[in-house]
Amino acid sequence: MSSAPFSRARLEELLKKRFFYAPAFSIYGGVAGLYDYGPPGCALQANMLALWRSHFVLEENMLELDTTILTPHDVLKASGHVDRFTDFMVNDSKTGDFYRADHILEDRLEKRLKEAPEAEKKEIERILSQLDDYKEVQLQALMERFQVRSDLGNELTPVIPFNLMFGASIGPKGQIRGYLRPETAQGQFTNFKRLLECNYERMPFASAQIGKSFRNEISPRAGLLRVREFTMAEIEHYVHPEKKNHPRFSEVAHLVLPFLPSSLQMEGISKTLEMTIGEAVEKKVVDNETLGYFLGRTAMYLWKIGVNGDRLRFRQHLPNEMSHYASDCWDAEIQSSYGWVECVGCADRSAYDLTMHTQWTKEKLVVRERLPEPKIMQVKRLEVSKKDIGMAYKKDAKAIVDMLERLTLCEAEDLMAKTDSEGNTAVSVDGIESLVKLTPAMAKIVESVETVHVNEYTPNVIEPSFGIGRIMYSLLEHVFWTREGDEQRCVLSLPAAIAPLKVLVAPLSNHDDFTPFCRELVTLFRKLDLNCQVDDSSATIGRRYARSDEVGVPFAVTVDFQTVKDRTVTLRERDSTAQVRLSLDDVATTIASIVRGEREWTNIVEKHGLFVQQALN
Amino acid sequence: MSSAPFSRARLEELLKKRFFYAPAFSIYGGVAGLYDYGPPGCALQANMLALWRSHFVLEENMLELDTTILTPHDVLKASGHVDRFTDFMVNDSKTGDFYRADHILEDRLEKRLKEAPEAEKKEIERILSQLDDYKEVQLQALMERFQVRSDLGNELTPVIPFNLMFGASIGPKGQIRGYLRPETAQGQFTNFKRLLECNYERMPFASAQIGKSFRNEISPRAGLLRVREFTMAEIEHYVHPEKKNHPRFSEVAHLVLPFLPSSLQMEGISKTLEMTIGEAVEKKVVDNETLGYFLGRTAMYLWKIGVNGDRLRFRQHLPNEMSHYASDCWDAEIQSSYGWVECVGCADRSAYDLTMHTQWTKEKLVVRERLPEPKIMQVKRLEVSKKDIGMAYKKDAKAIVDMLERLTLCEAEDLMAKTDSEGNTAVSVDGIESLVKLTPAMAKIVESVETVHVNEYTPNVIEPSFGIGRIMYSLLEHVFWTREGDEQRCVLSLPAAIAPLKVLVAPLSNHDDFTPFCRELVTLFRKLDLNCQVDDSSATIGRRYARSDEVGVPFAVTVDFQTVKDRTVTLRERDSTAQVRLSLDDVATTIASIVRGEREWTNIVEKHGLFVQQALN
Repeated sequence: MSSAPFSRARLEELLKKRFFYAPAFSIYGGVAGLYDYGPPGCALQANMLALWRSHFVLEENMLELDTTILTPHDVLKASGHVDRFTDFMVNDSKTGDFYRADHILEDRLEKRLKEAPEAEKKEIERILSQLDDYKEVQLQALMERFQVRSDLGNELTPVIPFNLMFGASIGPKGQIRGYLRPETAQGQFTNFKRLLECNYERMPFASAQIGKSFRNEISPRAGLLRVREFTMAEIEHYVHPEKKNHPRFSEVAHLVLPFLPSSLQMEGISKTLEMTIGEAVEKKVVDNETLGYFLGRTAMYLWKIGVNGDRLRFRQHLPNEMSHYASDCWDAEIQSSYGWVECVGCADRSAYDLTMHTQWTKEKLVVRERLPEPKIMQVKRLEVSKKDIGMAYKKDAKAIVDMLERLTLCEAEDLMAKTDSEGNTAVSVDGIESLVKLTPAMAKIVESVETVHVNEYTPNVIEPSFGIGRIMYSLLEHVFWTREGDEQRCVLSLPAAIAPLKVLVAPLSNHDDFTPFCRELVTLFRKLDLNCQVDDSSATIGRRYARSDEVGVPFAVTVDFQTVKDRTVTLRERDSTAQVRLSLDDVATTIASIVRGEREWTNIVEKHGLFVQQALN
Repeated sequence: MSSAPFSRARLEELLKKRFFYAPAFSIYGGVAGLYDYGPPGCALQANMLALWRSHFVLEENMLELDTTILTPHDVLKASGHVDRFTDFMVNDSKTGDFYRADHILEDRLEKRLKEAPEAEKKEIERILSQLDDYKEVQLQALMERFQVRSDLGNELTPVIPFNLMFGASIGPKGQIRGYLRPETAQGQFTNFKRLLECNYERMPFASAQIGKSFRNEISPRAGLLRVREFTMAEIEHYVHPEKKNHPRFSEVAHLVLPFLPSSLQMEGISKTLEMTIGEAVEKKVVDNETLGYFLGRTAMYLWKIGVNGDRLRFRQHLPNEMSHYASDCWDAEIQSSYGWVECVGCADRSAYDLTMHTQWTKEKLVVRERLPEPKIMQVKRLEVSKKDIGMAYKKDAKAIVDMLERLTLCEAEDLMAKTDSEGNTAVSVDGIESLVKLTPAMAKIVESVETVHVNEYTPNVIEPSFGIGRIMYSLLEHVFWTREGDEQRCVLSLPAAIAPLKVLVAPLSNHDDFTPFCRELVTLFRKLDLNCQVDDSSATIGRRYARSDEVGVPFAVTVDFQTVKDRTVTLRERDSTAQVRLSLDDVATTIASIVRGEREWTNIVEKHGLFVQQALN
């Protein structure tokens, strides 16, 4: 392998030249944060997704969905995205240029770190390690304290929140307000009732979705790592809130992962704890088995596609960093030349989303479990008298009743706790100017003794959410290297299972005798779904190998004069450049067995022996 | 098979109950024209797309792309979509309700047809058969002539064009104007230069893309047939404008297809001509081999996934019906209870798109072919003097030069042909109020003799464009039937290759002895990528078969007490309900061979003989 240091410039040049991806609409000047995937990038992505589907969806019979990108306003209002899906922004006060507040602050602090005296260094390091935890007020205070200015040295405007969703108006007059979804999750939650039916009302179960999501990033940067349109693969695993154990936990319990819990980060420590998932769950580093199970399955997937395990860690979110819906969250972070980047988020969304959609729509997104035997129970609920409210409030009555009926029991109890001496409660209702006075006749908490046959609960949701573009870019950095002694000869050591092309067919020359053998090989490869390419150009065989190394083709089959005589071909492996000689009739099944993970290259070398005569590498 | 007449209501009930698809966000009241695909629909779509990719992309080494949905304004302005991607709309003058002009006219004419006297009938039929050909003026005339009113009997507003694209503003201040793409094609065209490089500058070749597109339909209707967000699969095949032959044409030339050319439609004839593709191309019914080749390949794909060949036809567009970019277009139309519906469009887009993008960006999207030997040629071009225009027009000069440089030679010649007596030309330029006078010093056509080494041309594009949702719905109608004598027992006879689930594993009861065999079967099936489901519920075996028939599962494997004794299982085929008995160890490979199309069910019956003992239906 290479001893040359990693060069991002060289990798980017390769990815552009071979069209893994490129800025979209570049002939029109392009748009920041939009990228097109070319043939190798598109195939690599398709293979990563196929493996994801088999590793997660098929393996556990998850219910896969394909829901719409266009999403009406109310759905994202209920889910909290309209109000809280924001980043913090500042402007150059003269030019109006946009900056993400945390990004410009991070940049300036990192520069300052280099010159700061020892005492200040510690302080800056502490701030940097907790940057993700800061909201509007803290960011503004830091901007002022460190006198942060724009790239041109101008004053910055105050920090303001900016909603990241793209708006979309639906209908011929744009009468339906909506957005492009910022995640695929809400389309899954809003279908919860149908999904539970599909699963014959059994719990626990998971739904999954692969699809595009959109975020109107303030200032997109770092290539595929921060873009405005991206492919996600998300799992929503629904569990009983008090039974977060997992039947297959024992399959991952022994795996050792590098954990970085929030407690360590708060102390300014960035060294990970290595421990088994079993131990992490036992010691409550990770909250529960289901979350632990998915961290393990996530690591297994990332290892399988070729991510370097030494450059993978699981970092817990800091309390303020968490999304508005999450009660706990661990990110699978992959290290690249851009630092440690979140590529998969594993969040415990608790009952947040299903509860919000239930409140908003009055459609109960719950599980009803028949009890083994009926229970006698004290039951509390809010009793609302439409008649009394109607008589008192006329046209405002509907808004008041709607508001009351959307309350959870907990919220209703809180509200009803604040009464005046006559038992009246004053509440504010959206759309009604003055406070509304509710008498006990209009609304009260009532208790009764009931015989209950069914236990009804809102499931909690554990969500592993994969950013496919980020994983792909990080992976490409991990598998990129240059051959010893020749920095021009770049190689992408992509695992055979996800390589865009599986095999290069290279006739020694464009001699007519070779053509039928090449055709036969193509037919054999297609039959086994092995994506292959014939390169019968006049370039030397070495040059053709080098070209295929650049797009990560794991195998090359050479047809030569010996083939014409005895139907044998040379099979070359990309990383080692080692070759074996075997029958043309066996070569497709041999490659297929490696692609499917049934055999390894060393098994093939053992069987056929190394072939050295024509080692042109 | 069934003798019961097709019932759309029954099919729709089934599709909803088993969650093939359902209105999106229905708990929020839903949005017309948006549908979510549930687990069986999502799997069916994934299988249709996988087969599409193997049938088209892999088979011909097409260059697959994944480009962005967000598209900046200029791209779609250049492509003509901003100005011409419209439907015609009328409103109820009192309620403001929206109607698509051609739809309401069609509806009213069809009603009138039933009561009209014989003479008028003929006339109405002629109008109906050419409805797609009418634009704004003709539609308005017909609305008036037939006194069309709204559903409530109110007057309608005049016919106006309505642009179908969803707008999207990009960037934190929405400063970049854009749209959601209405087709995946433009992302392919704008990458033409990179694609040609990927293909080592060789012609002809094709790019392809699978992805979502968006159209803000005026009034969505007919379920999946007219929606606002949908999955397309599009091929752009680039050819030399004068060499539209196809190297693999002979492979499809013998196929007989039902053609409905525009000439017949203009005569009011709707009966198709059955002929081979070879004959159709020879007789110029179909313009060229490449178009013919793709019609053939399209038919082969549709037959393969289970579309009834008797309900498929190829209809040529009428001259006015053609999209603004097309020079010829044939639709693959599939008949369902909604009539004949366009599901695949095969358009010859000529050099339209590449020319427009070249003009707009000045980036040459052309092919340069080295000539075998240099040619001496008369070359004409428009010579523009920036200096003279600059002196005369100052700040307006740039707009004038830009306009001139975007002209094709042909357009320039037309412009320069209109001169006054002194050789000056008056032209109108966007953004400049008065006409601009160009003197011969500023712009003229010059001729010179040059030695040309390279032939440069803009390729033509043949585009087969598949609407996946429309195909899926039509297909579901074709494969739906109810068992003889029992209308409650619905079956979807989906071909094994695209069925969402390939096999049901049904233990005779939930006896513990059966569990290890079921597990073993699941492992065997997963290994061969056969999506399977275990149904160990307490329902009778007949009930479980019926449930799996409803989602089109082609095979069921039953584990019973005999299995425990000798490891044999029963294998049941869905359509015939016939069964065979074979070893548990052979059943996965047997099913896999049928899914892959290597064997048929009759081969299996021949080999193992029919098993009648446990034939429960």
